[in-house]
Amino acid sequence: MNLLILTENDATGEHRYCIDDHRADHIRNVLKLISGDHLEVGLLNGPQGTAVVEGVSSDAVTIRTEQLELVPEPVPIIDLICALPRPQTLRKVLVTSAMMGVRRLYLVRANRVEKSYFQSPLLQPRNCERYLIEGLSQGKLTRMPQVSVHDRFRRFFEDNLSEDYSEDSDSLCQLLPDPECETSLAGVYPCPADSSRPVLLAIGPEGGWVPFEVELMERIGFQRFRIGRWMLRVETAVAAALAQIELLRIQ
Amino acid sequence: MNLLILTENDATGEHRYCIDDHRADHIRNVLKLISGDHLEVGLLNGPQGTAVVEGVSSDAVTIRTEQLELVPEPVPIIDLICALPRPQTLRKVLVTSAMMGVRRLYLVRANRVEKSYFQSPLLQPRNCERYLIEGLSQGKLTRMPQVSVHDRFRRFFEDNLSEDYSEDSDSLCQLLPDPECETSLAGVYPCPADSSRPVLLAIGPEGGWVPFEVELMERIGFQRFRIGRWMLRVETAVAAALAQIELLRIQ
Repeated sequence: MNLLILTENDATGEHRYCIDDHRADHIRNVLKLISGDHLEVGLLNGPQGTAVVEGVSSDAVTIRTEQLELVPEPVPIIDLICALPRPQTLRKVLVTSAMMGVRRLYLVRANRVEKSYFQSPLLQPRNCERYLIEGLSQGKLTRMPQVSVHDRFRRFFEDNLSEDYSEDSDSLCQLLPDPECETSLAGVYPCPADSSRPVLLAIGPEGGWVPFEVELMERIGFQRFRIGRWMLRVETAVAAALAQIELLRIQ
Repeated sequence: MNLLILTENDATGEHRYCIDDHRADHIRNVLKLISGDHLEVGLLNGPQGTAVVEGVSSDAVTIRTEQLELVPEPVPIIDLICALPRPQTLRKVLVTSAMMGVRRLYLVRANRVEKSYFQSPLLQPRNCERYLIEGLSQGKLTRMPQVSVHDRFRRFFEDNLSEDYSEDSDSLCQLLPDPECETSLAGVYPCPADSSRPVLLAIGPEGGWVPFEVELMERIGFQRFRIGRWMLRVETAVAAALAQIELLRIQ
């Protein structure tokens, strides 16, 4: 836990918070903080800074925030489309997306996605949030990715996306990793990157997108590239692609 | 499972193999193969190619290999030093290392590594191998990373490394990700990459290396760089750094 994430539910008064779940355990048993100690905190979807521990009991930890400041949003904005993976993988994708500053996470149907995955209780917002907050806490970020679920492939790509990006349609950089492609990210992503251009990255299911899906995505502007010579797991592909985008941004 | 990994223990005769563990379940229940079907196989630390299913029973699956060929080793050679993480994380590091073609994996002691981690049963070769083979099977590779464990930080960096790389000391590219550093990988890793230069990448523990450790590593030639603006988990840092090295190689 690099940043203690606080939510409205934890608030007990002005600048004062009380936590009584696994975060309190962590403060007591791992960080071993006592009254008067300081730690780094962030308000969910809000500012971050420091807080002082006011009380530690076996039931709860009470803290008071100090010096909170809004942190600029990461640039470029990165939104992620992910063919809905099985729940075990989805948990990792949620953590990684939050840890690496993804703004929106679209979970979509694809030919190689099992229909039953859409029934997973993990898709309920309260269950997702647990893993998103875990990722924010690791990555020292406070803005929670906006997760949405889309069980119609075609409608999502043909209708939903054009609505969501109607204002960015000229500048949006749509990226589609494809192990069959010979071009690296540097061939399709401007370098040095123009940080004002939002990025939309589409990660396929285990087994990949089917040709119909790739054709439709290319038709609406997605550009294929090759992350590398590997066949990666979904959650590893997410991290690898985001790391490559970041390298072109900062290099 | 993108590649069925076969070991000497599976061999029953020339070109013939019998498997009766989770791999057989996968062939029966996920791939749903029957006699006469083909699948991609690789011999552990050996060639890869195709095989034909000769028999499927509730106990076992028998196959016969066809057309196996040696696949060139990935370049550049990448060796990974990893401060020994807790077992839950180590499993992921083992899978990722094998999946992404790491040649050697050094698991080392560091100030922020808990001593008890060195007692983990996971460090026994037989237990490691399970996760390494899982990674090879995902990444379609057959060369198993060579794992070694080093419980003395100083001796490892000052003695063991210079022995292992005595022949490569001039060309070895030693890389040390550090969130505090302002230089990107492109600033310390030659681009376009000279694929004949082996790479040695050192990933720290949760909480990072301590200053003494960074100083010692820099003294023997490690160059610091910044993967990105994030605080990453160990297994994510491994994937992110390897993906960035690959981008500079292929771009």
